[in-house]
Amino acid sequence: LKEVRVTLVRQEDQSYSAMIGAGILSTALADLAELQPGRRVFVVTDANVKAAGHLDTFANGHEVASYVIDPSGEQSKNMATVMAVLDAMERERFGRDSLVVALGGGTVGDLAGFVAAIFKRGVPYAQAPTTTLAQADSAVGGKVGVDSEWSKNAYGAFKQPCRVYADVATLATMDERGYRAGLVESAKHAMIADAEYFDYLDVKMDLLLRRDRTVLAEIAARNIGIKASVVQKDPEEKGLRQILNFGHTVGHAIETASGFQLLHGEAVALGILAAAKLAEDLGIAHQSERPRMAALLAKLGMPENCPANISDEALWEIMSRDKKAVNSVPRFVLVDRIGHAYCVDDKYSIAVDASLVAKALDAIRP
Amino acid sequence: LKEVRVTLVRQEDQSYSAMIGAGILSTALADLAELQPGRRVFVVTDANVKAAGHLDTFANGHEVASYVIDPSGEQSKNMATVMAVLDAMERERFGRDSLVVALGGGTVGDLAGFVAAIFKRGVPYAQAPTTTLAQADSAVGGKVGVDSEWSKNAYGAFKQPCRVYADVATLATMDERGYRAGLVESAKHAMIADAEYFDYLDVKMDLLLRRDRTVLAEIAARNIGIKASVVQKDPEEKGLRQILNFGHTVGHAIETASGFQLLHGEAVALGILAAAKLAEDLGIAHQSERPRMAALLAKLGMPENCPANISDEALWEIMSRDKKAVNSVPRFVLVDRIGHAYCVDDKYSIAVDASLVAKALDAIRP
Repeated sequence: LKEVRVTLVRQEDQSYSAMIGAGILSTALADLAELQPGRRVFVVTDANVKAAGHLDTFANGHEVASYVIDPSGEQSKNMATVMAVLDAMERERFGRDSLVVALGGGTVGDLAGFVAAIFKRGVPYAQAPTTTLAQADSAVGGKVGVDSEWSKNAYGAFKQPCRVYADVATLATMDERGYRAGLVESAKHAMIADAEYFDYLDVKMDLLLRRDRTVLAEIAARNIGIKASVVQKDPEEKGLRQILNFGHTVGHAIETASGFQLLHGEAVALGILAAAKLAEDLGIAHQSERPRMAALLAKLGMPENCPANISDEALWEIMSRDKKAVNSVPRFVLVDRIGHAYCVDDKYSIAVDASLVAKALDAIRP
Repeated sequence: LKEVRVTLVRQEDQSYSAMIGAGILSTALADLAELQPGRRVFVVTDANVKAAGHLDTFANGHEVASYVIDPSGEQSKNMATVMAVLDAMERERFGRDSLVVALGGGTVGDLAGFVAAIFKRGVPYAQAPTTTLAQADSAVGGKVGVDSEWSKNAYGAFKQPCRVYADVATLATMDERGYRAGLVESAKHAMIADAEYFDYLDVKMDLLLRRDRTVLAEIAARNIGIKASVVQKDPEEKGLRQILNFGHTVGHAIETASGFQLLHGEAVALGILAAAKLAEDLGIAHQSERPRMAALLAKLGMPENCPANISDEALWEIMSRDKKAVNSVPRFVLVDRIGHAYCVDDKYSIAVDASLVAKALDAIRP
């Protein structure tokens, strides 16, 4: 027996800048030409975003190759769409000198980022998020991928964008329900990491709901700052990054059980209420915290009760199959005080006694 | 305009060991259980390898989940097969705790490695190469991927294995033609990097052709050592790694133009002869070198002439579309003396005057 050791220590600077402002989408193409000279740009977007005029704004009079995902939304977030985008790039003879731009919401970003991760063994990509959810969450973090028939984000990669363009002017075209639900991730960021930001959201809520661009730019910057500080400490979700899943154990279960009738943010809002109840009953959080969280989510117009047609049994079944579960026991991220995630023994997600989980689910029943 | 900087410097130790010997395949499963405790093993192999009994040898009496690629060979190296493997893993509820094993030749290794790169955003994989080509070349290096309708290795990733098992006993079942063609990569390694290894191959050729296990283990170790030392200096082919493409500019063109009637090694042998002629005519290599290279390749039984039905025009067309071409001008790796690749201005592949390329192509005509 012979043994040959292959020594490979890789170090790579994957740092990037997120640009935030109103109207910056129209200059993104020129900015990219400076940042990544000589690359051919291929835009991945969807039918809704194109109809809203954002593809035209991005192209700004130039000819830009693109693939328009149709229908928009999670139902197209699969390998069939990935194949269609890859084929389109091959057919138009794109090569290693490509630069992919993800123009749209979370689905577009996840899918386009995954395409960039595997096309010619990897080409750079930029994120141009056009929803409150994507600007707060998915555009930063580098998790890309698509769903399988059996599970969410079944296939994917870790791939950081070379730049993010968060143009808050694009949020003007969002429908009211999606706009509000997307803001739940902002509330989540405040709850896990920044008490002063929580107060800011509370005070500025009226302006925020009127889509004031100054406030939107401020929260985009704060969201990206918080998410970046977490991701840069734990890019591949081995520990700290789990705090970003606050509200997602129950939230994801409700979202799935509703057959995606509830929006992600609406379901996560309910998940936050359940997690707040857990922290309260465990004696981890003071009784003052849950009502304050509930009040902020109510101002956003989020539901306070889980849909009646979803049983606790259905939620248990989904939570125990969740990929964050350990030996089929669901794990919960908790907040011990607003602005601070709970951590014990270097663990940010914990198993909780089933009777307490049942009480927490009761708390989001009428 | 606000700018938020996301600082992400990743450092990762991707080192691994290649184990080399006769009969080590039967203990690989136990070794992996020690190296990667608690992981569920999923084997990707092909119909030929299974028929040769290697899957049974690997399983060694245990129940092992597997996907058998059928038909074997490059024709199955596409996204449809990747999807079939991914679906099989999902259907059998494999998760983040999976460990993929690539059992077979280069196609199996490229495809299984790509599956491991994208399943649940990446799980570890091991290579168990069962061909002279894969043991010399593809099992080490971390380039994984599949072909598209339009180009080779169109979609893929860089993904290092966690271990390589080069069991030289598996080579006993190879057909003679494939066995010999796979040894061309060994000759190539000697030519670009190790003059003493070149002499070793020359002296041991009879034993090598009789598949002597001691000699096979020795060359496997040398091949992996050479390839590893190149790859660890340049994992993503930005410079030095190009020397591994010695003989591949013309070789790949002949392989493609032949409709894959010529095996990769057979075509690369012709490519080496052409590149040797180029180096000679450019005055880079002494006249003694080309005949010595030709003699070693002849001992391996490689063709000395390009098939008559392949025109120079066809080769030019393919070479100018090659992804290593720059502005449609093909690039060549040259050897200035046996055991040493030519380098000028830190460049390992150079453009050569078309009239000299024509003369080099003449040299592989009868």
